[in-house]
Amino acid sequence: MTDILPPGSTIGILGGGQLGRMLSVAAARLGYKTHIYEPAANPPAGDVAHQVTTASYEDHAALAGFAEQVDVITYEFENVPTAALDLLEARRPIRPNRRALAISQDRILEKDFLTGLGLTTAPYAAVNSAADLDAALTRIGTPAILKTTRLGYDGKGQARIMSPSETGAALAGMKGAASVLEGFVDFSHEVSVIAARGLSGEVSAYDPGENVHKAGILHTTTVPARLTPAQRTDAVLLAARILNALDYVGVMGVELFVTPAGLLVNEIAPRVHNSGHWTQNGCAVDQFEQHIRAVTGWPLGDGSRHSDVEMLNLIGEDIDCVPELARQKHTAIHLYGKAEARPGRKMGHVNRVAPKI
Amino acid sequence: MTDILPPGSTIGILGGGQLGRMLSVAAARLGYKTHIYEPAANPPAGDVAHQVTTASYEDHAALAGFAEQVDVITYEFENVPTAALDLLEARRPIRPNRRALAISQDRILEKDFLTGLGLTTAPYAAVNSAADLDAALTRIGTPAILKTTRLGYDGKGQARIMSPSETGAALAGMKGAASVLEGFVDFSHEVSVIAARGLSGEVSAYDPGENVHKAGILHTTTVPARLTPAQRTDAVLLAARILNALDYVGVMGVELFVTPAGLLVNEIAPRVHNSGHWTQNGCAVDQFEQHIRAVTGWPLGDGSRHSDVEMLNLIGEDIDCVPELARQKHTAIHLYGKAEARPGRKMGHVNRVAPKI
Repeated sequence: MTDILPPGSTIGILGGGQLGRMLSVAAARLGYKTHIYEPAANPPAGDVAHQVTTASYEDHAALAGFAEQVDVITYEFENVPTAALDLLEARRPIRPNRRALAISQDRILEKDFLTGLGLTTAPYAAVNSAADLDAALTRIGTPAILKTTRLGYDGKGQARIMSPSETGAALAGMKGAASVLEGFVDFSHEVSVIAARGLSGEVSAYDPGENVHKAGILHTTTVPARLTPAQRTDAVLLAARILNALDYVGVMGVELFVTPAGLLVNEIAPRVHNSGHWTQNGCAVDQFEQHIRAVTGWPLGDGSRHSDVEMLNLIGEDIDCVPELARQKHTAIHLYGKAEARPGRKMGHVNRVAPKI
Repeated sequence: MTDILPPGSTIGILGGGQLGRMLSVAAARLGYKTHIYEPAANPPAGDVAHQVTTASYEDHAALAGFAEQVDVITYEFENVPTAALDLLEARRPIRPNRRALAISQDRILEKDFLTGLGLTTAPYAAVNSAADLDAALTRIGTPAILKTTRLGYDGKGQARIMSPSETGAALAGMKGAASVLEGFVDFSHEVSVIAARGLSGEVSAYDPGENVHKAGILHTTTVPARLTPAQRTDAVLLAARILNALDYVGVMGVELFVTPAGLLVNEIAPRVHNSGHWTQNGCAVDQFEQHIRAVTGWPLGDGSRHSDVEMLNLIGEDIDCVPELARQKHTAIHLYGKAEARPGRKMGHVNRVAPKI
C-alpha cells in the first residue's frame, strides 16, 4: 500500500470534457485535487477541478508547467500529439501507458495486437493503394468499410463499399491517408466490458452492458446485457487478457460484437467510456473512481452491480427532456454543464435504476 | 417549470466544508456552477467549486461581491451573522429562508416552534437566572441538562445537572448567556428524517435512518431504522409538517428520539445533514442533489431507497483505516480532502451498501 499517491496530491487530466469532469469528481471523493489541461476555454471539467490550464498541446511551456504542478497524469482524450506525450512522460508518470494509447490510435496496430492475443476481430487488411484495396476486397468481400487507420485528424474518413465498382470513390475519400478495409460483421448486438487494472496488476471488470447506437452515437447501455453465462465469462476474460498484455493501469472500454460464432472485439478505448456511465448508479465504486484508484495505486474497488441500470445519453436537443426526466422515478440525471446544445453533442445522461433481477 | 434556475447559473454556498463540497458536486451534476464563501483558506469545497471567496462574514465588500456573482444563495453552515444575511438577502434569494435559520439557531425558539406545531420535544424551560433555574428544576426534575440557548459562540455551554446541589456550578458555566433547561428523555434510539421541500411546495422525505453517536459525534447511520410502520409514517409526516410551517425550501435534517410514548423531536438542522450521507449510495437522487433541486426550482427527485445502507463516519485517525476499507466489498468511500486529521474532525465517511430487504 506504500505506492498509494498521498491524499491531497494532484492528478493531471489531459482533456476537459465530460469524462474529465466525472473523473475530477471521483478524484475529489478519494481526497485528490485535479488539474485539467484543455485547449478549449471553459471546459466542462473546469467547474469541478482545482485548477485548469487552457493551452494547446503544442504549447510546450504550458505542458511543462502543468507537469510540474501535478503528481500523476491521466487522460480522457486519446489524440494527444506524440511530442506532448514525450514531454509529459519525461516529467511525470502517464497512466494508462503510451503503448495502450498508441495501439488504440491506430486501427491496424489495434487489430494486429488483438489478433496476436488470439482474439477475434472483423476481417481486415491494410490499404495504402488501389492494388491493396483490390486484393483486400478479393479476400474480405463486400460489403466492407474503408477507414483511415488513425482517428481524429478529420473526424470522418470512412466509406462503405457495397460493390467493387465503388473502390475508386472510397479510396479518394481517404485523401491518401493510410487506411484499413474491414469486413462487415453479422452481429446480433453490441456489448461492452468496462475493465480496470490496478498498479499492482489486479484486474476487475464490471458486468457487460448492452449498447444501442443512434446515428453513430451511443444511445443507451443496458445492464445486464443479453449474454449467456459463458459469453459473460468470455467477455470478462478477454478484457483481462487485453489489460494484462498491455501492462495497463486504469479503466478501459472494450466494445464487443455478439455473433453466432462468439464474441468479436470491435474496438478498445484506453479510458473511461460512455458505455460505463451506468456504474455511477449501479455499483458502490463507479468507473470514474475505479480509474482514479488504478492510476493512484489504490486497491481496485467493488464493481459488483447492486442494481440493474439503463443509461440513456442526452444528445443535443434531448436536453430539453430534462424537466420531464427530472420527475421520473428511479432516474438519476447527470448533466455536463455545456452551454450550447449542438446536434450530436453529448449534453448529459440519465441512469434508470431498478432492483437487480 | 419556468421557475427553474437556468443551467449554467451559479449557486452561492455559504460555508466551504464537506457539506459544501458535496453540494458543489451535486450542483455540477445538474449543470450548475458553485461559488463558495468561506472565511478559512483552502476549504474542502474549493476543490470542486467553480469559484471561492476567502473572506470573513464581517467583510461586507466581499459579501456584496459574492452576491453579485451568484444567482441564488444557500448554506451549509447555520451561524452566519445577521448583518451578513441582511446584506445578502437584499441582493439575492437565500434558500432555505431566514426564519428556518433563526429558529434552528435558538433552542428556545426551536422548541417553542415545534411544540406550537403540536410536536413533542424534551421538557424544557428558559433560564436566565438562578430563580428561573430553581423553578425549572422543580417542574422538570433531575437529571436535566442546562444549555446555552444559542449555539456556536463558544462551542460548549452545556452542563448536566444530576441533583439540585449542582445548579450553581451549572449556571456559572453558562457565563450569563441566555439558557434553557432540558429534561432527560428516556429514549431507546435516535433516528433522523432527511426531508426536502421544493420551491412549489412539494415535500419528499427519505426513509428514516438510525443514528449511533460516539463521544458526541455521529458514528453510524443505518437504513432502514428500527421503527414500526406507524412510527415510520409519523416520522415523515412530522418532518413534512415542520417544512410546510416554515415555507421551507431545501433539505432539512430532523433528529428524533424513539420513546415508549412515541417520537420526540430532538433538533432540526436547516441544511443537508450528516445522517443523510447514506443517500449517496442508496437512492437515485441523494440529499445533496435534492437540496440543489429545491433551491433551484427543479422538481424534487426520487428519494426512494434502492438499497440498504450503513454509513460510517471517519473521524480523526479513523482515516488510517481507509486502505483497509478500500478493499472491502460493497463499500463506497467519500473523503473530504482535509489535510490534517485532528481528533474529532470529520475526515470522510463510507457507505456500505446491501440489497434492500
